[in-house]
Amino acid sequence: MSGQRKTAQASLEAMYRIFTIPEAPDSTLSRLDQDISRNLTGFLQDHIVALEREMGEMEKDFQDPRVPEKPIFVSEQAQFLLDKLVSQSVHTASPSFVGHMTSALPYFMLPLSKIMIALNQNLVKTETSKAFTPLERQVLGMLHHLVYGCEDAWYRQWMHDPHHALGAMCSGGTIANLTALWVARNQAFPPEGGFRGVHREGLFRALRFYGHEGAAVLVSSRGHYSLTKAADVLGIGRDNLIPVATDADNRIDPDALRDRCLELQRQKIKVLSIVGIAGTTETGHVDPLETLADIAQEFRAHFHVDAAWGGPTLFSRQHRHRLKGIEKADSVTIDAHKQLYTPQGAGMVLFRNPASVSVIEHHAQYIIRKGSKDLGSTTLEGSRPGMAMLIHSGLRIIGREGYEILIDQGIEKAQSFAAMIREHEDFELITEPELNILTYRYSPARTQAALEQADEAAAERINASLNRITRFIQKTQRERGKSFVSRTQLEPAQHNHYPCVVFRVVLANPLTTHDILSDMLEEQSGIAREERIAGERRALESAVASVLEGTEQAAQ
Amino acid sequence: MSGQRKTAQASLEAMYRIFTIPEAPDSTLSRLDQDISRNLTGFLQDHIVALEREMGEMEKDFQDPRVPEKPIFVSEQAQFLLDKLVSQSVHTASPSFVGHMTSALPYFMLPLSKIMIALNQNLVKTETSKAFTPLERQVLGMLHHLVYGCEDAWYRQWMHDPHHALGAMCSGGTIANLTALWVARNQAFPPEGGFRGVHREGLFRALRFYGHEGAAVLVSSRGHYSLTKAADVLGIGRDNLIPVATDADNRIDPDALRDRCLELQRQKIKVLSIVGIAGTTETGHVDPLETLADIAQEFRAHFHVDAAWGGPTLFSRQHRHRLKGIEKADSVTIDAHKQLYTPQGAGMVLFRNPASVSVIEHHAQYIIRKGSKDLGSTTLEGSRPGMAMLIHSGLRIIGREGYEILIDQGIEKAQSFAAMIREHEDFELITEPELNILTYRYSPARTQAALEQADEAAAERINASLNRITRFIQKTQRERGKSFVSRTQLEPAQHNHYPCVVFRVVLANPLTTHDILSDMLEEQSGIAREERIAGERRALESAVASVLEGTEQAAQ
Repeated sequence: MSGQRKTAQASLEAMYRIFTIPEAPDSTLSRLDQDISRNLTGFLQDHIVALEREMGEMEKDFQDPRVPEKPIFVSEQAQFLLDKLVSQSVHTASPSFVGHMTSALPYFMLPLSKIMIALNQNLVKTETSKAFTPLERQVLGMLHHLVYGCEDAWYRQWMHDPHHALGAMCSGGTIANLTALWVARNQAFPPEGGFRGVHREGLFRALRFYGHEGAAVLVSSRGHYSLTKAADVLGIGRDNLIPVATDADNRIDPDALRDRCLELQRQKIKVLSIVGIAGTTETGHVDPLETLADIAQEFRAHFHVDAAWGGPTLFSRQHRHRLKGIEKADSVTIDAHKQLYTPQGAGMVLFRNPASVSVIEHHAQYIIRKGSKDLGSTTLEGSRPGMAMLIHSGLRIIGREGYEILIDQGIEKAQSFAAMIREHEDFELITEPELNILTYRYSPARTQAALEQADEAAAERINASLNRITRFIQKTQRERGKSFVSRTQLEPAQHNHYPCVVFRVVLANPLTTHDILSDMLEEQSGIAREERIAGERRALESAVASVLEGTEQAAQ
Repeated sequence: MSGQRKTAQASLEAMYRIFTIPEAPDSTLSRLDQDISRNLTGFLQDHIVALEREMGEMEKDFQDPRVPEKPIFVSEQAQFLLDKLVSQSVHTASPSFVGHMTSALPYFMLPLSKIMIALNQNLVKTETSKAFTPLERQVLGMLHHLVYGCEDAWYRQWMHDPHHALGAMCSGGTIANLTALWVARNQAFPPEGGFRGVHREGLFRALRFYGHEGAAVLVSSRGHYSLTKAADVLGIGRDNLIPVATDADNRIDPDALRDRCLELQRQKIKVLSIVGIAGTTETGHVDPLETLADIAQEFRAHFHVDAAWGGPTLFSRQHRHRLKGIEKADSVTIDAHKQLYTPQGAGMVLFRNPASVSVIEHHAQYIIRKGSKDLGSTTLEGSRPGMAMLIHSGLRIIGREGYEILIDQGIEKAQSFAAMIREHEDFELITEPELNILTYRYSPARTQAALEQADEAAAERINASLNRITRFIQKTQRERGKSFVSRTQLEPAQHNHYPCVVFRVVLANPLTTHDILSDMLEEQSGIAREERIAGERRALESAVASVLEGTEQAAQ
């Protein structure tokens, strides 16, 4: 063999080895694998550096746009990931990280995920997924039952029927909402006479054929941004995702909704869909779904409920009434990677009528042939992993009772944290928790008193200052890495709809305790007292003083 | 404590435990985890039952639409999955399963996936992904460099720029294609004068404003069905995804394409995008990309290349010329879960111009704020897992050279398998492999001779019979579970475009050997001789005989 051929042969064998020879038990990667199995919490604590590094600094480790010419050792890459990536990742499982919707995972999700990855099924068709197909159909059936609670015979009839689907699994809530509105749009402009339907002829001809000047989707101003994205993608246009005013509790105002619908009707704009929210992303509030269902029916619009967050509340006997009316929805989005506690990448949309998907059905010669049970004929995505296995396992291992406990304790915790905030002299509760989400802000008792009496200009000065301090606290706390709350901007009725920066807390991690929450508040309170923000605090104090003294003088 | 409260407390503690206490090392789940680490091949061989079970039989294990009231033990669920799901899954890693695009995975993907799941980052924003954000941007940069090969300075400028993106990561090629066409559509109808752009006003007003009667996307008739889906979703309409005729080698006919474009122009239909294919799903052929780029420019249409399958061919010095012209594409789809050998759920679209994404950019108050580096502002999906880590590891551990070897040996293997088929007396090669995909069918030498002389009616009779036998062989082989080829339907020029059922073979699994392929052919040949299909074979023989004898008589 020539030298060159020998090298080529050696390279080929090296490639062959990575497909056939397991990592040695004492390799870096195997040790990490075992560490995670033995003690996930320890692994995360040991390897994630709490202190935040500048993004610019981190980017230095990810600069090279070239794929390396020569393979590097697995151990080298493992060490690199450990030093540069794992260390600088976010401790999403930490009980003091209550700013986002990612919680700790149940332990069993880890080995199960490994089985899922090892099997590497593709759920687009039965040929590459076999039993995963009926499994996924069952998971959709279980969640459908949770929402709609049809008779057992109904599920026996439809759950595994090749021409129907109780829902569509997908990578997350955004695709779920998009799929729901896709169905809504296609149902609104079906084939008729010479018109072959919007799915075939497109939106331009559909509107022309049906004599509309446009199409719209309505949702409260607290709707998730994925709906705007969906309106864009579907050709409806972002401006036709109509935000409807909310009441003081961040719930859609049904009168305002009906008025907007009437107005659109007058403008010959078709109301495609009314979207209710079961757990808004920012404040966790639930729209009056029953009323929305009636309005949707009045305007013959598709009624969709975005329950990406709040859906699993239905497991709780105590709290499921908050979602009353969801069973009237034509479609419902639920994210499994939120309150069903699976890893990222598992969402779904459910359809009350299992024939709904027919308007988005598609087929090809080599795949998802007509009459096959292939799931891919009614999903927006093509190739998809077997995440249904993890949802199935969660539903069975945690059970209805287990999810109920998780939901109930989250809501309880939110209520007692709200009480803690109300009693604290530095903070103001902005939104009461209906589910397990609440918002508050830095606003000392004296400032709150001043705001009650302030005129518009003074209130604006004070609120602007509170916004800056709240933002500073949130940022500083995040950078220190001990705990994390997120922030958003709300226009609370109690502050005359002035845009207020608020802390947002999501209490879904069962490991979050009252002590952790109390420490978190104290840390925030301490940050507010720091020298770096003293100037701002003085400005606030002076604005507050001038209001209070002015009032005192007026009273004399 | 009352009995009821005691039970509640016990349930709460049980729930707490699943989040805090690792699976015991000797538990069913831990043992499976270790088995997979030690010997994945053995695990799959031991647990997957080769023989196919009836779908109706499998469904019996997935019937109950109710979430169980009480939690079940992890071990019980693990055993259930092993018996009912794993056993009835598809051995996608098997070297004799060459019918789909899922190959064996490199071993290191397994422990790395576990780390990814354990970290459970959400790539939508830096707040829940930190270093994963620059990592993902680097991965997009590396693939961008593979396709477009810009200067290093160019990548330094744009790769981590918050207002630009070299691409968008997503769950797979379907979303990638959809994202590309979303960009194309929004770029075609930008804001102008009083018009706020299609993204805001929707497609109806866009077409009216720009004076078009419709919008179309053109692709060869071998285009992936995801493009039709995208045309539907985007409001363009499935009928406006225009299939263009191909030449005898399944490559788009540029003259036919230009004619269709001119025709559309005459009908005042806007040509939004021309899509080239780099590796068709069915036959693995590559369109003449350079010519397509010119035509796209001529009609000022977005030029997209669907290289979901063939993209990594660019790693091969020997074969990258086949994709010449791809660097002129405005956007390119590549699937990492295909020829970059990651698990399911990793696709991406790359943009030549990193400002392209501005037309689909979106922001919200609580996330992906303007000017942030959050990846979510330019992706179709919202929450997404850290799959970029697996792609990054593949690119570094396998390296350019490693991928080259994988690509080269796949194409070589396809070529020698094609030779094997040509020499075999029972089979007919239908499409020559350009990459590592080929198609063939059952058609004995004598039948092939008859087809060359047959009139239309006789040819139809023979081809229909061959279709039935080919379908029978494919189905039987799949059911026996020893090996698997897929099937599709093509209209080959050499058979006067008669719809022929063909076997389709994808040679991406490095563990597939010549012996395996040879055995597979013999198994097929054996199935064709079975009693169950004897009637059909006799009918074929008589049709063949009457052609050949007729010819002989005519010759006398």
